[in-house]
Amino acid sequence: MDPNAPDLGVGLVGHAFMGAAHSQAWRSAPRFFDLPLNPRMRAICGRDADRVRAAADRLGWESTETDWTRVVARDDIDLVDVCTPGDTHAEIAIAALEAGKHVLCEKPLANTVAEAQAMTAAADRAAARGVLAMVGFTYRRVPAIALAKQLVEQGRIGQVHHVRAQYLQDWIADPMAPMSWRLDKAKAGSGALGDVGAHIVDLTQHITGDRIASVNGLLETFVHERPLAADSSGSLLGGQGASGTAMGRVTVDDAAMFLARFESGAVGVFEATRFATGRKNAIRVEINGSDGSLAFDFEDMNVLNFYDGRDPAETAGFRRILVTEPTHPYVGAWWPPGHGLGYEHGFTHQVVDLVTAIGKGEQPLPSFADGLQVQRVLAAVERSAEMGAWQPTAVPVPAV
Amino acid sequence: MDPNAPDLGVGLVGHAFMGAAHSQAWRSAPRFFDLPLNPRMRAICGRDADRVRAAADRLGWESTETDWTRVVARDDIDLVDVCTPGDTHAEIAIAALEAGKHVLCEKPLANTVAEAQAMTAAADRAAARGVLAMVGFTYRRVPAIALAKQLVEQGRIGQVHHVRAQYLQDWIADPMAPMSWRLDKAKAGSGALGDVGAHIVDLTQHITGDRIASVNGLLETFVHERPLAADSSGSLLGGQGASGTAMGRVTVDDAAMFLARFESGAVGVFEATRFATGRKNAIRVEINGSDGSLAFDFEDMNVLNFYDGRDPAETAGFRRILVTEPTHPYVGAWWPPGHGLGYEHGFTHQVVDLVTAIGKGEQPLPSFADGLQVQRVLAAVERSAEMGAWQPTAVPVPAV
Amino acid sequence: MDPNAPDLGVGLVGHAFMGAAHSQAWRSAPRFFDLPLNPRMRAICGRDADRVRAAADRLGWESTETDWTRVVARDDIDLVDVCTPGDTHAEIAIAALEAGKHVLCEKPLANTVAEAQAMTAAADRAAARGVLAMVGFTYRRVPAIALAKQLVEQGRIGQVHHVRAQYLQDWIADPMAPMSWRLDKAKAGSGALGDVGAHIVDLTQHITGDRIASVNGLLETFVHERPLAADSSGSLLGGQGASGTAMGRVTVDDAAMFLARFESGAVGVFEATRFATGRKNAIRVEINGSDGSLAFDFEDMNVLNFYDGRDPAETAGFRRILVTEPTHPYVGAWWPPGHGLGYEHGFTHQVVDLVTAIGKGEQPLPSFADGLQVQRVLAAVERSAEMGAWQPTAVPVPAV
Amino acid sequence: MDPNAPDLGVGLVGHAFMGAAHSQAWRSAPRFFDLPLNPRMRAICGRDADRVRAAADRLGWESTETDWTRVVARDDIDLVDVCTPGDTHAEIAIAALEAGKHVLCEKPLANTVAEAQAMTAAADRAAARGVLAMVGFTYRRVPAIALAKQLVEQGRIGQVHHVRAQYLQDWIADPMAPMSWRLDKAKAGSGALGDVGAHIVDLTQHITGDRIASVNGLLETFVHERPLAADSSGSLLGGQGASGTAMGRVTVDDAAMFLARFESGAVGVFEATRFATGRKNAIRVEINGSDGSLAFDFEDMNVLNFYDGRDPAETAGFRRILVTEPTHPYVGAWWPPGHGLGYEHGFTHQVVDLVTAIGKGEQPLPSFADGLQVQRVLAAVERSAEMGAWQPTAVPVPAV
Repeated sequence: MDPNAPDLGVGLVGHAFMGAAHSQAWRSAPRFFDLPLNPRMRAICGRDADRVRAAADRLGWESTETDWTRVVARDDIDLVDVCTPGDTHAEIAIAALEAGKHVLCEKPLANTVAEAQAMTAAADRAAARGVLAMVGFTYRRVPAIALAKQLVEQGRIGQVHHVRAQYLQDWIADPMAPMSWRLDKAKAGSGALGDVGAHIVDLTQHITGDRIASVNGLLETFVHERPLAADSSGSLLGGQGASGTAMGRVTVDDAAMFLARFESGAVGVFEATRFATGRKNAIRVEINGSDGSLAFDFEDMNVLNFYDGRDPAETAGFRRILVTEPTHPYVGAWWPPGHGLGYEHGFTHQVVDLVTAIGKGEQPLPSFADGLQVQRVLAAVERSAEMGAWQPTAVPVPAV
Repeated sequence: MDPNAPDLGVGLVGHAFMGAAHSQAWRSAPRFFDLPLNPRMRAICGRDADRVRAAADRLGWESTETDWTRVVARDDIDLVDVCTPGDTHAEIAIAALEAGKHVLCEKPLANTVAEAQAMTAAADRAAARGVLAMVGFTYRRVPAIALAKQLVEQGRIGQVHHVRAQYLQDWIADPMAPMSWRLDKAKAGSGALGDVGAHIVDLTQHITGDRIASVNGLLETFVHERPLAADSSGSLLGGQGASGTAMGRVTVDDAAMFLARFESGAVGVFEATRFATGRKNAIRVEINGSDGSLAFDFEDMNVLNFYDGRDPAETAGFRRILVTEPTHPYVGAWWPPGHGLGYEHGFTHQVVDLVTAIGKGEQPLPSFADGLQVQRVLAAVERSAEMGAWQPTAVPVPAV
Repeated sequence: MDPNAPDLGVGLVGHAFMGAAHSQAWRSAPRFFDLPLNPRMRAICGRDADRVRAAADRLGWESTETDWTRVVARDDIDLVDVCTPGDTHAEIAIAALEAGKHVLCEKPLANTVAEAQAMTAAADRAAARGVLAMVGFTYRRVPAIALAKQLVEQGRIGQVHHVRAQYLQDWIADPMAPMSWRLDKAKAGSGALGDVGAHIVDLTQHITGDRIASVNGLLETFVHERPLAADSSGSLLGGQGASGTAMGRVTVDDAAMFLARFESGAVGVFEATRFATGRKNAIRVEINGSDGSLAFDFEDMNVLNFYDGRDPAETAGFRRILVTEPTHPYVGAWWPPGHGLGYEHGFTHQVVDLVTAIGKGEQPLPSFADGLQVQRVLAAVERSAEMGAWQPTAVPVPAV
Repeated sequence: MDPNAPDLGVGLVGHAFMGAAHSQAWRSAPRFFDLPLNPRMRAICGRDADRVRAAADRLGWESTETDWTRVVARDDIDLVDVCTPGDTHAEIAIAALEAGKHVLCEKPLANTVAEAQAMTAAADRAAARGVLAMVGFTYRRVPAIALAKQLVEQGRIGQVHHVRAQYLQDWIADPMAPMSWRLDKAKAGSGALGDVGAHIVDLTQHITGDRIASVNGLLETFVHERPLAADSSGSLLGGQGASGTAMGRVTVDDAAMFLARFESGAVGVFEATRFATGRKNAIRVEINGSDGSLAFDFEDMNVLNFYDGRDPAETAGFRRILVTEPTHPYVGAWWPPGHGLGYEHGFTHQVVDLVTAIGKGEQPLPSFADGLQVQRVLAAVERSAEMGAWQPTAVPVPAV
């Protein structure tokens, strides 16, 4: 941390799983990276005063708020970090941008394309005033993913033919796993599609530098009713079971899968599910190009597998690259080769890139427009699943 | 080999890649397994007298024929093994069955559903006379696959939710790889879809004991023209390039992918391609059930990965089962634990199961009806790809 | 962090690689775990005032010192964290303990058995006054390693027969990699043996709950002279090359390997090297017992492979346990299943266990006595390598 | 098979595990490779007339003998293939060579160095008369191993520093696994050391082109008494248990491990055991050189892992080479890429190389002299284990 750098006051809205990850990122980023601004963890916001107080103590925030509009209003706060469920993103983010605060908004950007459009418009207006917005697809900042993008950009795999992406979890494969807000369409917007599918849509578009042009999908709900947890609000990812007999209705997809055509002519197969028993957070991306291939699985997150089709056949093979070299993206700031990073480091890198962009007055990526594009893909998947037919992603939606 | 067992005269039609694999199987099966009949390698048939003579010497057949009708007619031949391209299957197989010869027919059963229907009808008529027919989906006989089926049948993974299957090769990823009959729709019927996709359709239906009810697919040809090899007939899998400038038109799909709904309610994602650079014969099947999961990749063919969802969380994990124990399917006849088998052993096991069924007068599996079901799935994929919409697999087709 | 818990003032001596890792641990531990005391990062100490000032700013320490005796003397410091090269451990740690400060000392405990004995005696005297000492074998706190120990304790692998451990790095495989203090016997005590070999000695004794009774080893130096870096003090792990022509003499082993007999009758094979090209931080431990086996590789640090010999042969196989479940050691405080941890988390867990032990007034583990036992094994390896014969580890050494 | 090539009459002595593997090799080799001579499976020999008759029927030999001297004497036999336990190798092989028969002798060449010396002398005398001898270290003929040797010869890994080899099995980890001749020093010579350790000694010397100069080892027997099987002669690899109470004494090592120095200056660590629970036939060889590394595990036998130290750090990683390309050793004769081979193919390749050498009148490799060198290493390990000190391998032994 540079003692001469100006401060960047940060206010965090939300204090559950994402709140903890973002807090660790705000705290760690200036300890390992040179930042143009020193983040100050000014305030954390939640609706319940006691719980947010406890969160502030544990996560290390200077003060608490119970009303997000207070965070947006405070003079000592320069950036609002939005970690709430998707149905509140638009309101908070737009208000913050209009109040002149930079915004970091968790993914998916919004629950609907209309909201995402409004947010993107707000971000565009704000940008004209030097106020910047970013959406939190943190997996872009896993070093192995960042390396994958570099290799594609350098032409190491040639022209992309195939994209194969899966996001596999299993936390509701048990039919007695309880209800949570993530299974409620009103709050979560969608199920596996938006929660985890959004990540692989963003990752594959990011790595290939290409956009999904049309999709044809299938959504499935395997378990339609689940026990209500005693206190469903506190249970982030559901629980191990429930004692009560009251049942809640699952209104989102348990699994989503779709075929895709990219603008470049590449074809893709996508699958997102929380019913892949034994797979805990298997974000798998495999890309086959005319001259090589890449394969990644988050369950082995420090590794990128790369096949160089230009190697002679005798010694060609997928190279298990341990992405821990000082010359690999982000890695030089951390530990020696072979001393891997973990899940939370993606969030730290996100803070680094965001603060660096703010320092330079440049647009941080992924922008709200990038988040909107992901939202359009998700919406097209939902339409195609309803209609049983291909849908373009670039469909204009009336403003809200 | 039991010297007191009766002989089973075998005639093989075709002598390329599949002919070599079948020959090794006919020769090896009686050396490792107790068979009720002793296979005799009576005749091999090919159109070119010199080439078939050389094949007979190399592959170990007693005599040669240049006209398949001769094979069907010979009294010393009890079984006709059909290893020709798909456009000839129906004619040869039906004639052989009508001549009272048992038939082993390579997959896919035929190039069209109509042909497959006619073959199945012929097989049904023949069965009534004790003449038996089998289609050669040999991968069913890889011990790890046979074990997978057993585990599903035993309920070890519970109710199946997800089927995820890929057949990935890369032998035409190079746009200068030459034309071959496998890229000509007239001979091959389809491209990746029928050639390799047929295998994963059969495997997943076989392992789950379920049937694909409807599909929604996409076919893609990335390279539309390829150099003609000097002698395309001899080049089974294409070559490393071509000197001439004459170009041939690729009339089949380079890649096929489709979503599927199974009769049981399970959903599936399938992908077959020859453009997956670096993947040589990656037949990947992953099945997620309510109580466990299975994962297989032919590039590590002696291994089945099994996740037992009933293991306590502390010690649950995918078990890398080395399927080389004497109690594993087929394995007891071979080598001690850890001494793995290879590609050709599936063909040997196919001969074992076929000859055993003939000895018992029972229907060998997969039957022509099973092959017809696969063909219906492939046809539905083609229709869905044309129409961009879901298609049922159980569509009646007018008889030829 | 509990705002009502008393403070624990911490002073850190050293600010290189280990200093950074320890700083992150002191900062993070109270944010994720309930601690009985709140660590306060009071002072960081280094010989160069400017460098230690910069380190304090970057790593987040309240003040700086340039003389370690000042850290030991300060009233606001309750615990001294020793992260200096091994030749200074004894002097600093003993002084701190005598001054009534708890001590966390990096491994190896000392450069000689005599020093380690003196330190252990000092720790024993201090313990009688409630002042506690711990040595920093952090890899014990990788969740997969902690799980391995639990499984052995629960009898899941039965009686241990084989221990197989390797610590493989490659950072000096290049003969032009420059000199560093780690290659100088006067400072580092030994080479691969003490630097990385110490870890696998500790890990295997820890996991098995057993002690190495005798050893027979081999030390090898492949490259005897190396270029002097422009400023060797700043180059922690050597560098990519050197421009000058001055050469320094390597006085430690590049590789160490030894056979071992454990007190229980188990046998072991150990290997530590920095010449294993392509292996970056491969800490591999494999243990075979009468009823099961364990296998770990730090290059896939969130995974423990476990073979349960009581599984029926049909479904037995090494289980790839993703050690990210809430019930796994340390993991419940972090992220959901499948969201893995990194290298630095072991240090955070070390702080947690140390502060918890201090809060309870209990001996933290590994104790200095444990560190002494490791030192005795290393010394026995050196003796055996000199004499070419087996050496017992329990050899009394005259006090310094 | 070339119908114009002369015949090579083969007589096989032994018909258990190795007899079956050799039979399949003699039968298959001429079907896939061009050989200068056509092997004829003339006679198989065993002491029990009924059993050898059954073996001949099953394994496909033209006739049987119950006295090996008859095999050596028959005019229609040109080559004697010795697959008996080690204590009989010298007598049979020397007699065969003196009778002018080529010899293929299973490994280890003999049970003692003295016998191996005598055999080597006999082979030298025979060679002068154009009669050739080879010892059966078949793993040299696994394509991945043959590729490893090529890469070392081409300098792809530079100067070899480290050799790390393990041969891990678990078939007697159960203390109730019954006695077998392999646990009887009188018949087997040694235990894990000679049975499986011999393979990794040969493989590492073969791949590196180097020789082990001195060793320092440890032999251990974990279970000293085992139940006698009802018929121990028929149980090749022990069984699942035994009903009787009679116990037999294990007189060989259950595990052997040793440190080694190679002539070139490389150092090695070796381990052979049958107590590695869960490892079935894990022949692991890892070689680290100044410019690269190789790693192989027979449990994934179609793969060679190769790290090219000359790759730039960004994209360096162990390449998982699927050794199934037509340009890989032996592979062109078999199946397309990705269609792997199994355990028995090494035996087929051994026949190919042997018959080719006989056809050319050249010395086949490994020669008896190579087998003798392995025997010297094993003997030095035994001496070092007794004496607890390093032993040179090149110790002259008095002739028998």
